[in-house]
Amino acid sequence: MLNVQLSNNSLRAFRSSFLDFVDDPFYVAQTKCVRYIPDGLLIVENGKVKELGSYESLKDKYSDISITAYPKMLCMPGFIDTHIHFPQTEMIAAYGEQLLEWLNKYTFPTEQKFKDKAYANKVASIFLDELLRNGTTTALVFAAVYPESVEAFFEAASQRNLRMIAGKVMMDRNAPDLLQDTAESSYQQSKQLIQKWHKKQRLLYAVTPRFAITSSDEQLRLAGKLLDEFPDVYLHTHLSENQSEVAWVKQLFPQCSGYLDVYEQAGLVRNRSVFAHGVQLTDAEFQRLSEVKAAIAFCPTSNLFLGSGLFKIEKAKSVEHPVKLGLGTDVGAGTSFSILQTALEAYKVAQLRQQKLSPFQALFLATLGGARALNLDNIIGNFDPGKEADFIVLDLHATPLMAFRNQDIMPTSIEALADTVFSAIALGGDRAIRATYIMGELAHERANTR
Amino acid sequence: MLNVQLSNNSLRAFRSSFLDFVDDPFYVAQTKCVRYIPDGLLIVENGKVKELGSYESLKDKYSDISITAYPKMLCMPGFIDTHIHFPQTEMIAAYGEQLLEWLNKYTFPTEQKFKDKAYANKVASIFLDELLRNGTTTALVFAAVYPESVEAFFEAASQRNLRMIAGKVMMDRNAPDLLQDTAESSYQQSKQLIQKWHKKQRLLYAVTPRFAITSSDEQLRLAGKLLDEFPDVYLHTHLSENQSEVAWVKQLFPQCSGYLDVYEQAGLVRNRSVFAHGVQLTDAEFQRLSEVKAAIAFCPTSNLFLGSGLFKIEKAKSVEHPVKLGLGTDVGAGTSFSILQTALEAYKVAQLRQQKLSPFQALFLATLGGARALNLDNIIGNFDPGKEADFIVLDLHATPLMAFRNQDIMPTSIEALADTVFSAIALGGDRAIRATYIMGELAHERANTR
Repeated sequence: MLNVQLSNNSLRAFRSSFLDFVDDPFYVAQTKCVRYIPDGLLIVENGKVKELGSYESLKDKYSDISITAYPKMLCMPGFIDTHIHFPQTEMIAAYGEQLLEWLNKYTFPTEQKFKDKAYANKVASIFLDELLRNGTTTALVFAAVYPESVEAFFEAASQRNLRMIAGKVMMDRNAPDLLQDTAESSYQQSKQLIQKWHKKQRLLYAVTPRFAITSSDEQLRLAGKLLDEFPDVYLHTHLSENQSEVAWVKQLFPQCSGYLDVYEQAGLVRNRSVFAHGVQLTDAEFQRLSEVKAAIAFCPTSNLFLGSGLFKIEKAKSVEHPVKLGLGTDVGAGTSFSILQTALEAYKVAQLRQQKLSPFQALFLATLGGARALNLDNIIGNFDPGKEADFIVLDLHATPLMAFRNQDIMPTSIEALADTVFSAIALGGDRAIRATYIMGELAHERANTR
Repeated sequence: MLNVQLSNNSLRAFRSSFLDFVDDPFYVAQTKCVRYIPDGLLIVENGKVKELGSYESLKDKYSDISITAYPKMLCMPGFIDTHIHFPQTEMIAAYGEQLLEWLNKYTFPTEQKFKDKAYANKVASIFLDELLRNGTTTALVFAAVYPESVEAFFEAASQRNLRMIAGKVMMDRNAPDLLQDTAESSYQQSKQLIQKWHKKQRLLYAVTPRFAITSSDEQLRLAGKLLDEFPDVYLHTHLSENQSEVAWVKQLFPQCSGYLDVYEQAGLVRNRSVFAHGVQLTDAEFQRLSEVKAAIAFCPTSNLFLGSGLFKIEKAKSVEHPVKLGLGTDVGAGTSFSILQTALEAYKVAQLRQQKLSPFQALFLATLGGARALNLDNIIGNFDPGKEADFIVLDLHATPLMAFRNQDIMPTSIEALADTVFSAIALGGDRAIRATYIMGELAHERANTR
C-alpha cells in the first residue's frame, strides 16, 4: 500500500516534442490554437499533468527527477474515439453489405455471443489492448444488449484504469429475439449498470438505444427517463447514417418530422447526447444539434466502407451553427482501430466534397475536439495543468517509407510540423504509436522495429 | 559461372496454400475462375512455374528435392501495379490539393531532383524495395522527364531481375521550364531509351506523355510515331482524372470531340495503351477503349485522396463493352504502395456507388487482370506452367487483429477463403506480405513479428 502511494505521488518527467491544441483550428488561427514545443518537458504528478514547457525553461526546476526521453518523437494527448462497438471486434472487415443488411447478416449473429460473460471478458480485453496499440485512450463504446457484456467491458477498462464510456444496447424490436430486451427490462438493467459503474474510477455510463429502428416509442421514452434521473450520464446512439435507414425511420415514426425529431420527442437530444454518423442530416437538424449542444461522431471509414455517404463536415463546423464533433472509428463497420487512419478517411471525405480538412483540424478532432464532444475537455484532451495524463508518443519514422519521407529530423516550424503529422495520418496507423501512457503510466510500448 | 547455372537449373519446391485465377470473376462463375489448393506444392524450374498441384498428388514425384514450406499461409501470384510514379515516392501524402494544384505545388518541384542520376538511383532503389515489401512484382511506372531517371530505374530493376515497364515522361508545355523537353528531344530520347532497354532482361518500355495538357499536338504525334516504329512498346498516360483537367483539355484541343479523342487523333489509343484513372469517362469513351482493347488503370486511393471522383467499375467490366482493367496505386497521389490496401479503396468506391466488388474480383484485378491489362498474361499473372515464378506469400494472421479475426486456421472452402482474403485486403497492407519471390528466388522476407 505504501509503495503504491509513493508511486502515485512521485513526479514523472517526459522529454520529447509536444503537440496539443488549446483551441479549435476550425475557427481560430493556427498560431492561436496549436501548441508545439519542439523540445519540451512534461511533468506528471499523481497521474495528472503538473506542467508542460520547454526543456530549457523547466530543466533546473526538476533537475532531481529522472527523465523518460523520446528524442525525435512527438508526444500528443491520447486519441479519443467517439463511436465504436466492442462486440464487433471479431467481425471487422465483413464483406459486401450496406448498413441494414450488414446488421442482419454479420452484426446480430456476432453480438449474440456476448451473453457469455467469459467470452465477453476475452473480447473486451483484446479490444482495449487494440485501442491502446492504436493510441486511443478514451472511447465512447457500444456494448451488446446483455448486461454481461457491459460488466465485462467495464471490468477490463477498470483493470487498465482507463477513462471509458459505455452502455448496454437497448433494443426491443426489429432484431432477432435473442438480441431483444423489453422497454422495461432495458430500463431496469441500464439503471442497475449506471448505479454500479457510472463514475466508478474513471468509468462513465451512456444510455445506449441502438437506433430508432430497433427501439419502440416506450423504450425511447424510458431512455429519456434515465437521462432525467441521472443527468450526468450520456446518450449514445446512431442517427441518419444511410438513406434506407432514414426512410424506414420515417415509416416507423410517421408522427415525427424527421429522424432527429424521433429522439427529440423522447427527450434524448441534449447536451450530453452523442449521435454517430449524421451523414444524411438536414440543415435544420444540424442547427438543432447546435442549439442543444449535442455532439456528432463522424465515422468516415465506416461511412465509406458501408457506402453510407459523405458527411458534411462544414455543416457541423459552421460559424453560424457549430456542432460539437469528434471522430469515431465505428469498428466493426470501420476497418481500423486507428484514429490516424480514420483521420485520413475524413480527409478523403472532405476532398470528395471539394473541402479541405487540415492535419491540425483532424488531430484536433482526435483530441481536444473529441473531448469537447464528450464534455470531458475539463479533464482530458490536451496537456493543460490538472488534466489526466493520458498521452501517446508518435514515431514519425515508424516505417521505411515514413523514415524516407520525413528524413531523420523533427520539424522546427508549425508549417513543417503540419506536413509531418499529415504523413503520420496518411502512412502511420498503429505503427506510428510508439507508446501509450495512461495517467502517466506506460500502458503500451511498441518494439523498435520497422 | 558454373554455380549460377546450376542454381538456375535446379528445381525448387514450395508447399503452402495456393490461390490464383484462371479466368475473370467479373464474367465467369467463381467455381470456374478461382483456383484454390489448400495444401499445394509449387514446382519452379529455371525461374518458371513447372507445375502446381496438391501436395498429395505431387509429393512422390518430387520426393528428392527439399521443400520450402509456408504452413498456414497463402501463396499468390505477385501483385501487378498498373500505374505508379517512382519519382513521387518521397512526396507521398502531400497535403490539401486537387489534381492540377497538386501537380504544381508538389509534383513538379519534386521531379526536378531526378535530373541528378545519383539521386534517381537512390530513390529507384527505395521505390523497388517498397514495391517488393508490398508484394508487387510488376509495375507500369512513370519516371521523370529526364532520361537519367529512366536509366536509374531500369538499372535498379535490372539488378533485381524484375518484370517492370517504364518510360520517360514527355512534357513540352504547361510545366516549369526545367521540366520541359521539346517534341523532338522527347522523341529522340524516348527512342534511344527504347533501343537500349526495351526487352533487355525482363524490362519493357512505355512511351509516356504525361497527359494531354502538358504535351503539344506535335509531341503527341511523335509519341504515336514511336508506337508505329516500335509496335510492341506500351503507351502509358493519364486520362480523364478530374473535372478541371477535362475542361482544360477541351480548351486546349477544341478540334477534338473529347479527351480520349485527343489521344486517338495522335494514334495513341491502341491495344497496348494503358490509361490511368478514367474517372470522368463517357459511355462512348468506355466503348471505344473496349473496341481497341486498350486498358484502364483504376487508382482508387489516389482518386479519393485527390477528390477526383468515383470510377465506374461496372462500365469498364460491362458485358457489352468490356475494358481491360488493372489496379494502380498511383503513388504519390496514392498514399500506399500496397495493392491490398488499394483493393480496399476500390471496394469503398464501389460501395459509394451502391456496387459490389468481391474479394476475388479485387484480387483478380491485382494479378491476372493486371497482367491482361498489360498484355502480359502469357508470362505472368497466375501459376500456369511456363509462367515466370513471381509470387508472394500472404500471412493472414500478420497482426494481432488479423490473428484474432481469422483464428489460427486456413480456410477449407472457397466461401471461407473469400472471407479470409477480404480481411487481408481490409487489414493487411504490407504486413500481410510474408515473402516475395522473383523468378523463384526470395527477394523480400518479413520478420515474424506482429
